[in-house]
Amino acid sequence: MAVYTDLSDEELADLLAGYDLGRALAFKGIAEGVENSNFLLETEAGRFILTIFEKRVARSDLPFFMNIMETLAARGVPAPRPMRNRDGDLFSEVRGKACTIITFLTGVSPKRPNAAQCRAIGVRLAQMHEALRDFAEVRANALSVDAWAPLVRPRAALANSLRAGLAADVEADLAALEAAWPQGLPRGVIHADLFPDNTLFLGDETKGLIDFYFACTDALAYDLTVCLNAWCFEPRGAFNLTKGQALIAGYESVRVLSEAERNALPILARGAAMRFFATRLADWAETPAGALVRPKDPLEYADKLGFHRSAKNAADYGG
Amino acid sequence: MAVYTDLSDEELADLLAGYDLGRALAFKGIAEGVENSNFLLETEAGRFILTIFEKRVARSDLPFFMNIMETLAARGVPAPRPMRNRDGDLFSEVRGKACTIITFLTGVSPKRPNAAQCRAIGVRLAQMHEALRDFAEVRANALSVDAWAPLVRPRAALANSLRAGLAADVEADLAALEAAWPQGLPRGVIHADLFPDNTLFLGDETKGLIDFYFACTDALAYDLTVCLNAWCFEPRGAFNLTKGQALIAGYESVRVLSEAERNALPILARGAAMRFFATRLADWAETPAGALVRPKDPLEYADKLGFHRSAKNAADYGG
Repeated sequence: MAVYTDLSDEELADLLAGYDLGRALAFKGIAEGVENSNFLLETEAGRFILTIFEKRVARSDLPFFMNIMETLAARGVPAPRPMRNRDGDLFSEVRGKACTIITFLTGVSPKRPNAAQCRAIGVRLAQMHEALRDFAEVRANALSVDAWAPLVRPRAALANSLRAGLAADVEADLAALEAAWPQGLPRGVIHADLFPDNTLFLGDETKGLIDFYFACTDALAYDLTVCLNAWCFEPRGAFNLTKGQALIAGYESVRVLSEAERNALPILARGAAMRFFATRLADWAETPAGALVRPKDPLEYADKLGFHRSAKNAADYGG
Repeated sequence: MAVYTDLSDEELADLLAGYDLGRALAFKGIAEGVENSNFLLETEAGRFILTIFEKRVARSDLPFFMNIMETLAARGVPAPRPMRNRDGDLFSEVRGKACTIITFLTGVSPKRPNAAQCRAIGVRLAQMHEALRDFAEVRANALSVDAWAPLVRPRAALANSLRAGLAADVEADLAALEAAWPQGLPRGVIHADLFPDNTLFLGDETKGLIDFYFACTDALAYDLTVCLNAWCFEPRGAFNLTKGQALIAGYESVRVLSEAERNALPILARGAAMRFFATRLADWAETPAGALVRPKDPLEYADKLGFHRSAKNAADYGG
């Protein structure tokens, strides 16, 4: 939600000299992405987003992310296409930081997705999985089951201050997840953060999947459960079965889940909720009082964990 | 630099239903303006900026600002044109706040303006003054000479903590300004905040004057000295005479300064520096430690006050 790095018009001109995009016609910082600095960049060649990578994103991961976007765009999945600079590289340097110029996609991010949009994003998620089926590069999921306890356990007091008894509940979740985390499910490249914020729609039509900077190699069905968490809940942890059915049906219209994947949906969904609870709890602890950017509420995901604890099978998610 | 109000896609659709601009094709919060929330809004009718007015901007002032922009755009001065809604109004309501939709202007804000850009903005400033010569509405300058002492005096300790002895220096400035603040100079609508940030250029050509939300009725030459402060200094309070000459020559190519205005340039320039020192000092005091948006440095304007103290006449500014 903030621009951390700002560029002078001269720095921008120098950067653009390394591309075949003409000169800048407009350049505005946009409030998108908490991790990176993003700018709307219009040049004589069209409209783009310039992303400057701040902390958290490791430079060694950039080729993985860029190649995913380029592959998807080439295969008809609506992802931004990264521009190659005059050296043929998909990212450049500015102010000692890595940056990339990707195509601007039209569309508006839904704030309260409807069932038709849930179905549409299920279709697109499966298309993405299929389009990257032969993608050779691998990146471990740094925010999978092993990462959650180290984020959550040191913040038990904070968790209890947000809601009495919460630390014990999530401790039980962590134990259950560590004991039962599924192995051997079909794997591939997953988006891992496909929230409505990271999609663009016109009406019920998906026009863009964006922000691939958490993408990694993991169970494909886990990616679906990230979406079940992000798209199919109403306030206070109420799961919307209609939206769950739409999301899963959309997904399966392109890629049918195996029996093992279907059976794993409850534990995967619980893990996905824990992943976002864990990072939100850590962000909550680290944000100074009075900061302009309010961190996202960890309790939203504590509520979702409550639903997943009692879910028994895929049918509870609409599968 | 931050989006304070965010709109859902449904709220945006409701807002657009009140205009004849078609549906939204893109909608992104942009990091522009500290006082208001700004969004890039593309619709079927073109590209716009949606501004939602937060604190500080009084609703009763909005017609003044909107009418200025509409008048300038109609008279060929490159200002954003506010769109009229279906009721014929230049602003609407959303989330209980006033908002306006204005045309998007291309161009990039210069970070370190060159002399040609200083000349160009001098031309545009005078064109703006001339284009609004018969503008009937009046708005008092709430940040003129009477406003500075109440902002500065209670913060003497803060001033001294930023630089030893600063409070006594600015106290002497305040006394000098109150004693000698000129009256009777030609008045009209002034922009009052025409910093490089509030302009758009392609190369050396001005493509836009933006952010009219400090506009008011005051001495026209005061507006010129706001620009001398904002456009013609190098780091550490060094006035760049070449840029000053260019700015004043550009201005006078459209509107010649009277003898009284020329003689008043040093005291007006000192007052303009005090105006920005005063609000920056107040903002500095009010920004919590650790806030993501760093307030602007009051010492930049303390340095400029140092130059103005020793300036004797218009020639010291290049006039």
